[in-house]
Order: sequence, then C-alpha cells, then structure tokens
Amino acid sequence: MDSVIMVMRERPDLRAPILIEGLPGVGNVGKLAAEHLVEQMKAVKFADIYSKHFPPQVLLDDDGVIRLVDNEMHYSKGEGKRPDIIILTGDYQGMTPDGQYELSYHAIQVCKELGVSRIYTLGGYGIGKMVESPRVLGAVTDISLCAEMAAHGVVFSKGEPGSGIVGASGLMLGLGKMEGIPAVCLMGETSGYFVDPKGAEAVLRVLMALLHLDIDLSALTDKAEQIDLITNKLKEAEAPEAPRREDLGYIG
Amino acid sequence: MDSVIMVMRERPDLRAPILIEGLPGVGNVGKLAAEHLVEQMKAVKFADIYSKHFPPQVLLDDDGVIRLVDNEMHYSKGEGKRPDIIILTGDYQGMTPDGQYELSYHAIQVCKELGVSRIYTLGGYGIGKMVESPRVLGAVTDISLCAEMAAHGVVFSKGEPGSGIVGASGLMLGLGKMEGIPAVCLMGETSGYFVDPKGAEAVLRVLMALLHLDIDLSALTDKAEQIDLITNKLKEAEAPEAPRREDLGYIG
Amino acid sequence: MDSVIMVMRERPDLRAPILIEGLPGVGNVGKLAAEHLVEQMKAVKFADIYSKHFPPQVLLDDDGVIRLVDNEMHYSKGEGKRPDIIILTGDYQGMTPDGQYELSYHAIQVCKELGVSRIYTLGGYGIGKMVESPRVLGAVTDISLCAEMAAHGVVFSKGEPGSGIVGASGLMLGLGKMEGIPAVCLMGETSGYFVDPKGAEAVLRVLMALLHLDIDLSALTDKAEQIDLITNKLKEAEAPEAPRREDLGYIG
Amino acid sequence: MDSVIMVMRERPDLRAPILIEGLPGVGNVGKLAAEHLVEQMKAVKFADIYSKHFPPQVLLDDDGVIRLVDNEMHYSKGEGKRPDIIILTGDYQGMTPDGQYELSYHAIQVCKELGVSRIYTLGGYGIGKMVESPRVLGAVTDISLCAEMAAHGVVFSKGEPGSGIVGASGLMLGLGKMEGIPAVCLMGETSGYFVDPKGAEAVLRVLMALLHLDIDLSALTDKAEQIDLITNKLKEAEAPEAPRREDLGYIG
Repeated sequence: MDSVIMVMRERPDLRAPILIEGLPGVGNVGKLAAEHLVEQMKAVKFADIYSKHFPPQVLLDDDGVIRLVDNEMHYSKGEGKRPDIIILTGDYQGMTPDGQYELSYHAIQVCKELGVSRIYTLGGYGIGKMVESPRVLGAVTDISLCAEMAAHGVVFSKGEPGSGIVGASGLMLGLGKMEGIPAVCLMGETSGYFVDPKGAEAVLRVLMALLHLDIDLSALTDKAEQIDLITNKLKEAEAPEAPRREDLGYIG
Repeated sequence: MDSVIMVMRERPDLRAPILIEGLPGVGNVGKLAAEHLVEQMKAVKFADIYSKHFPPQVLLDDDGVIRLVDNEMHYSKGEGKRPDIIILTGDYQGMTPDGQYELSYHAIQVCKELGVSRIYTLGGYGIGKMVESPRVLGAVTDISLCAEMAAHGVVFSKGEPGSGIVGASGLMLGLGKMEGIPAVCLMGETSGYFVDPKGAEAVLRVLMALLHLDIDLSALTDKAEQIDLITNKLKEAEAPEAPRREDLGYIG
Repeated sequence: MDSVIMVMRERPDLRAPILIEGLPGVGNVGKLAAEHLVEQMKAVKFADIYSKHFPPQVLLDDDGVIRLVDNEMHYSKGEGKRPDIIILTGDYQGMTPDGQYELSYHAIQVCKELGVSRIYTLGGYGIGKMVESPRVLGAVTDISLCAEMAAHGVVFSKGEPGSGIVGASGLMLGLGKMEGIPAVCLMGETSGYFVDPKGAEAVLRVLMALLHLDIDLSALTDKAEQIDLITNKLKEAEAPEAPRREDLGYIG
Repeated sequence: MDSVIMVMRERPDLRAPILIEGLPGVGNVGKLAAEHLVEQMKAVKFADIYSKHFPPQVLLDDDGVIRLVDNEMHYSKGEGKRPDIIILTGDYQGMTPDGQYELSYHAIQVCKELGVSRIYTLGGYGIGKMVESPRVLGAVTDISLCAEMAAHGVVFSKGEPGSGIVGASGLMLGLGKMEGIPAVCLMGETSGYFVDPKGAEAVLRVLMALLHLDIDLSALTDKAEQIDLITNKLKEAEAPEAPRREDLGYIG
C-alpha cells in the first residue's frame, strides 16, 4: 500500500494558485480557519488524501454512512484581485514524525504539479494563558516576504516561537523552501486550552487582507463569544485547577 | 520480506461471493461470530495470511506442533438463495496503525481478485454496562444499503458509535468504499468486559436473515448462559470493584 | 540501507547441514548453549549479520577496537554420524516485531541457500521459580518429529508454554514450516531470574544425543555451580525481596 | 520520500579528506567541538542533509526566516601538513534506531564518494560526576590505530565505556569498518549534567595535534569558565538536589 493515496475527483484548471493549509493542532486554530474558508468561499472539493499514517478509523455521518479519515483539498477560482485558492484541511495530521514528513512531502509535490505560487500555513501559537486580542505571528521561507507580512499586521518577534514550528505548518514551509515555493506560516495566539475560534478569526483577518477575500466571520465570532462565556464562568469559580501544560499538544 | 504474505492452498471458484470478516476486538464479538460460522458451515480453509504486522509468535497445539500466528480465509459454496461466502478470521489484527492499513488493504485486493460483491465486517460495540438484549448497530459505505439493513433489524443510531469505528472492521469499509465494493459493518452491543457470545449471537441472527443461512446457534447460547451465570454471581457479591474503562480495548 | 546485511567471509561447502539457533532470551539459555557449542566445536565463523533492527551500538574489546553489534554464523564439518552443523548466535534479537520477522525471514532464506535439512532453535522456558533438574520442553513443525524428540527425553506437555513461543526461536519454526524446513524448538526450564547455565546444559545434553556430538560441558557445570552458590546465599538471607515478574523478559 | 535527502550546494574537490563528525549527545561535547571547528576554520557549507528520521520541525532565525532541521557538511581545504577536512554536524541525530542506521549509512556512502581516508567521531563520555581535567577516551576500527592515538594522549581504558558507544559516533565506526574506512571515536569525559565546553576543548586539543590544526580555543575556555562559576555556586548552596541519571541521555 502506498504511504499516501490521493484520489482526485477533478483536475482543477488554476492559475498560480495560493495553497492554504489548516490542519488540527494547538487550539485547532488552523483547522477552524481553513474549514471556515471552505464554507464561506463555497470551495469545491477535488481531492481526498488517505494515508496509513492516519489512524485506522472511519467516521460515521448521521445516516450511518462511513468515510475513511482523510485530508482534503478544495479549490476556489479567483476573480479580480482575488487569486485562485486551494485549501488543504482534514481530520488528522500524520501520527508519527515519519508520517508527518511523508504527508507534507506529498502535499508539496501536489503543489508543484498544480503550479502553486505561494503557501500559507495556519496554526495556533499556544501561550498558556487567556488572550484578549490575539496577535498573529509569522514565519517565512525567505526574508523578502517579511515586509509584506508586517504591512498586514503580522508580528515577527525574535525568539517566538522559541522551539520553532512542529508539524505540517512547519514542514510545509521547510519542504516548500527546499523545492523553491515561497511559504508563510501564520500563527494565531491562543491559550491552547480550548478550541479557539478567536485565534482562527485573527488569522483569517490577515489572510483576507493579503488575498483580497471577502469573508463573513460572524459564525467564528459567535463561537468565540460562547467560549468566552464559558471560560468567564470558570474564572468566577474559586480556586480553579490550573490547566495542565501537557494539554497544549502540538503546534499544527 | 513482504509486509503481508498470503499462502493459498486452493483457488476457489466462487460466484460474486460475500466476504464476512470477524477478527479479535471488543468482546471478541466479531471473532466469535466468524469462527462459529466457519464451524457450522463447515467452511473450507483456502488461504493463510502471515504478516510482520502480527506479533512474532507461534502457537502450539496439544501435540506440541506449532503454527505461526495468522489470519485465515475459508469459503463455503452457496445453494439456492444462499450465496457463496468467504470468511476472514484469525489470531490478531495488525499491531500498529500502519499494519492495520496494510492488512486491510491486502484483504481488499484479495476481495477484488475473487470478485467479492459485498463485505460484512463484524464487531462489538462496547457500551460499558451489561446488556440483556444486545442491539446490532450498523454502518455502511453507501446510504442505499441502509433500508435493507434496517429491514433486518439493524439499528442506525445518530452519533453511535461516536468515535467512529477503529480497526479492521472500520478500515475494510473505508478501503472497500475507495475500491467500489459495497460494505456493511454489523456491531453487536456488548459490555466490553467479557468475551461475549451473546453479542456474537445477535450479529449472527442478522447475518442469517440477510444471507439465508441456516445455522445452529446453540453452542453460542450455551456459552452465553455460562457467562451470565458467572456475572450474576459477581453481581451478588457486595460492592464489586468497577471494571476499568481501559479494559474495553479496541473496536474490531 | 537494506534491512538486513549479511557479510560472508567464506561460502562453506556443507552437506544438508543442521542449523542451531541460540540468541539472547529468557535466562539467556539459547545464547549460552549456542556459544558453548561454537567454542567447544571450534566452529568457524563464516558470516556476520548486521541490521537496522538491532540497537545502533558498537561494542569495544579490551584494546578499544570496536565491532558493530551483530548476529553471526559459524559452521563445523561433520564426521561419521555427526552431521555438518551451522550455529547462529549473536548480541541481540530484533528490537521490534517487524525486525524479528525480517531477521528470522532472512535466516530462513539463508537456510534454503545452504541446503539446511533441519533447524533446532534453543531457548529458555521461564517458570518463575528455581528448578533443580530442568526439563527440556519441545515444539515442532510437524508431528512426525515428536517421537524422535521424545525418545531423547524431550517433554511435550499439553498447554506448555501456554502463550506459545515469542521471538526468533518461535519465528524460525513458523517461517521454516512455511518454507518446508523441518524445525524443532528445545526449551530448557529456567527460573528466568538469572543467566542460567543449568538450562543451557540441559538443552545441550539433548542436542548432543540427537546429533552425536561429543562436547565437554564442564565449563557450563562450573558456571551453574557458582550461580547455585550465589542463589543459595540469597535464600539464606531473610525476607528476600521477590524477583519481579518483569525481569523474565522474552522467550528467545 | 527518500529516507535521507542530501542537497549539495557544491561538489568540493578534496584530496583524501578527513571527516570529523560531531552531533548532539552527552554533554553536547561532539556538537560543541564540531561547531567550534566550523567557525574557527571558516569551513564552507556544501551540503544539507534532511531526513524523515529527524523531528518534523523548522527553526526560526531572528527575522522569522525558517530552516528545516538538518545535518550539514562543511569543508576546509588543507595546507602543508594540514589535510583537507569535512565536518559533519547538525541539529539532531536520528530519532529511532532505524533512523540512526539510515543516517549513518548515508554518511558513510558520502564518505566513499568523496574519498574520505579517515573518520573521527566526537562525543562525550558521561561519568556522572564533575571532572576537573577530562580525559579523552578512544575507540578505533583497527588495532593499528591505537599507537598513533595513544601518542597524542588518547586513553584506551579496558571496560570503558562499558556499554559500548551508542548513536552516530558509534555507528559511523561500525559501518565505516564494514566499508573499509579507518575510523576513530574520541570521547571527552563529562559529567553529562550540563552542556560541556571543557569536554569539547579536551577533544579538540587531541584533534589539533593529530591534524596539525591551529585553532583558537578561547571561546570554549570562556564558556567553560562561565559554567564552572555557575556549578560552583550550585555546590555552595546547601543540600543540592542530585541531578538525575536520566538527564545523561545519549552518547553521541
């Protein structure tokens, strides 16, 4: 069995598309943002990616119909200033370091075949405490990208994140750089304790400006408010047990 | 060494056979059911499947003769309404996610070669408490299969099982769907604390109706009664220690 | 890098040789016995087997000269009733199930190339308590081998070992059977708490009779007496801490 | 994806170069020494080595520009008695035994292609206590190398290190020996509790004599003094908590 199997429904005809990656990770920021994009842009699924590096698991819909866990690629044709866009999201990242490399390497090969001109990877930056107005930190494959990002409010902060970026959001930059594809990682600050729509919103605001997207963020804002309500109630309760650092998991 | 090695004793001549999979898992429901079928149908073994994804282990019979742990395929020719049937059972499932994929992928390739027209995978659905009359839950590769299943008493219950299906019983649906083979998973409810012949019986009753099988279930009923006796005695004893959730293991 | 690399110093010209395997395992019985054979028979090393399934480690001799951890094959030409013999021993067994299969599969391929007519694998059978006169239990690939073994004092005891045989001593029977090479596992009883020369001696006595070997066992007897002295002193000490079951490790 | 990917910037024209390996390990002695050499010799990077056996991680520089974690090869042309030199250093060793073998095997293949005439691997020898004047212990692929090493102060001490050498510094000797490349491991004594520039200095003094290098060691001496200051203060504090043995990690 091939380590990664891509089943293409259609081969989209795209001009120098931008690839946006958002997979599960810290605060699920990247996945939330990418799925919100797919929904709001009515992006069209064109590929399923299966892999033995995912868990051996099927998921059920409400009717009892299964689907094998996967990653998926959607596209949306551009118009005017808005470029053609590919969105990569899915159920899981690779479960092992080896699997992480195989899956990101495969994604980069697909980028080359589809003529991807730039990659944005989306993730959370776990800071271990609640954050009112999350910053969006950046990382790039080439210093020439910094000015453009900074102009859109992306923060480049020496020594942050200190341990680099682990997982697909990092690897796709690393392997993209190896293959000559410019790439940017956008990391929304998040406590890391909850699924965090606020972090996703922050990341999307930057993307919207960069790519001339017109996206309704109200669904994310609503979710963020609900989570704020819950966490405020938790704060009011006395002597709350501190969330454990181990819960922060993986930067995605 | 190939990751999976199949040694065929004979190449059976079958017409659009139905494959039934039952491997070790929660309550051992799938394996109990599949082995009972093999015995009662006097199904003929035609293939041994060895793999480095199984434990490096041989088992001994009463004379001290070894056999390498394996999975096995048996067949039974149909008659009248009863279709040709292949039964896949064995000692173990793959020990790693990677191994799970390799083994299920191999099984699906064999299905294609043998012209399998439908797959039934059998497993247990662990609910963490004793159950008097176990339901049989279903999962399918295509919504067109639901009505037929429901007509035979299979329950499709929104949100059950919540975490999907893990292991061979799930993967063979997922990979079967990818290859265009219709497949159904039948899950007998079980506490998950014991080997559960009652769950196996429930699953087999559905299969018997679906496939026009005439199987004597008394051996399973007897085993179920013995286990009921034991568990009732345990209940009578005061303040029994609660079984641990971790004992539930794997949905197979 | 190939998963297993064999470096042959010489290609020995052997007639239907017998392969004897003894690798580290419970009580180190198999390795002790095999190494004693190599020494006493002045067997000639003809092959080094390296593998990425061994630890990434080199060992140092007294001069500081390294050698990569390996398995080794030695041969000894027969005479009269004594057959040509190959002895497989070494520093480690494969570290993972996958590695165990790869290494045993490789060894069986080598057996086929060298025309091996029978395999004896040597191991310990851990029984968790001190044993005065260890029995030698047997396991075979074919029932036709039982009578010959029993005639030489090998015990076939229904249900022992209950969990089968794990590791190289089991796999070489399992894979040997698959390739049509008759094979026997001889397991010397041992507490499993110590390196056990007494178990090795018991196994060698059987082998000597079977293969018409004339081997001096006094070095093993001496070591066994020393260990008896130590363990007797331990017994005299009051309330000794019970050896932990985990120390039993692997049947090899 | 290939298990190891080497990206060569230039193919250096070297005469029978000496390869010096220093990767992370006990006290980081090898990596400190190798990186100090690269800096002081102004060695030129000619190859990046990426691998799925490294963590799936990118690191950020102060501007936010990423690089994929890797190993690197630098060269320095010789002059007079000083030979051509290749230095192999990097962020990580392989994360698994399998990965260790793959990476060292790859490095040895590169050695063969580049005509490497001898390998020096640098590492720490963790002795679990502070050491004033660290010895440099040696291990070699052939006894003919011992005299030359001993003449430069390298200690060959029977039974040290008792468990051999684990990791790249050991494997490159083991695999080098297999391919006929003479190789020496130089191990600087270190407590193993801290990054240890003193151990690195000791190792470099031996290398300088062996290879006729003229290297300024003052930066290492300064770092060592700073660490001495810190550890002395820790000693003065009463009842210091003993460093844990687990912190010793890997001999590299």
